[in-house]
Amino acid sequence: METTSIDQEINASEQIISPEALLTHWQGHRKLTRKVIEAFPEDKLFSYAVGGMRPFGEMLIEIMDMANDGMDGIVTGKWKAIHDLDHASGLSPVKTKDQALQLWDQVTEQINQAWPQISPQRFLQVEAAFGAYEGRIVDTIFYFIDNEIHHRAQSYVYLRTLGIEPPAFWDRY
Amino acid sequence: METTSIDQEINASEQIISPEALLTHWQGHRKLTRKVIEAFPEDKLFSYAVGGMRPFGEMLIEIMDMANDGMDGIVTGKWKAIHDLDHASGLSPVKTKDQALQLWDQVTEQINQAWPQISPQRFLQVEAAFGAYEGRIVDTIFYFIDNEIHHRAQSYVYLRTLGIEPPAFWDRY
Repeated sequence: METTSIDQEINASEQIISPEALLTHWQGHRKLTRKVIEAFPEDKLFSYAVGGMRPFGEMLIEIMDMANDGMDGIVTGKWKAIHDLDHASGLSPVKTKDQALQLWDQVTEQINQAWPQISPQRFLQVEAAFGAYEGRIVDTIFYFIDNEIHHRAQSYVYLRTLGIEPPAFWDRY
Repeated sequence: METTSIDQEINASEQIISPEALLTHWQGHRKLTRKVIEAFPEDKLFSYAVGGMRPFGEMLIEIMDMANDGMDGIVTGKWKAIHDLDHASGLSPVKTKDQALQLWDQVTEQINQAWPQISPQRFLQVEAAFGAYEGRIVDTIFYFIDNEIHHRAQSYVYLRTLGIEPPAFWDRY
């Protein structure tokens, strides 16, 4: 069997994160985001915002769509286009806090089930995520995680302006 | 030479991120954060805040202290205590936007210079960062990165409430 440069890369001794560690990292952040959803008053999740931005409920749908459709794309190699992601997700509509939490847990399971189907080689393949964003699969996954951290942090400001103390940033258990 | 469990872990073929890739990931985020500093009006960086939170300038000092003292701890194995980090950083005082940008670039260089001194084995060692937060070095570095994403995202809300459009989240070049 021929050794490709990708094989050489993943076999190199200087790699420092395993797929399992990356999954734990992501799901740790997702546990914190779930606590933030719980901290929101029911009537504020889809209506309240600061600075002309979106309510956190809308950001949540983006985060869940990205994870849901993203894992599908990573496992199958077939990506929904951006347009479909924005406007026609199978996950929507989500209109209440309970629905958001239920869907959150569904996506948690979906990620856990998809993960073992991603080979070490697959993580290092370069592909246009959602037909648009070219990068290695592992970097696409970091984009999902970082985008979640980013929007969750904005919701921390929303909560603070409502007089609610958000969960601690390190509380990912 | 005896093979330890850590050696086995880093030699396993399923590792998916190299130290070089992690440095690129972090410095990409740091490039975006620098653009956010640039986007702030001079008179708002250290004075303006939303929801009773800290001004972004204060968060920046935390981010830079964590990177600066964190890299020292990682390279030397000697960590400043939390108390020292909060109150007696060699980096402070920073009071203007120019000083913040200058210090930012200094920390960028410091990270780049420290990085090659961290061996692949070192990334996987478990140690109490700042004498308090026990975890593998690689996870401590992710904490630095994620904490930066978190506070930068809060500054996006600050900028929006000031009527200023922040740099795009994907703009890390």
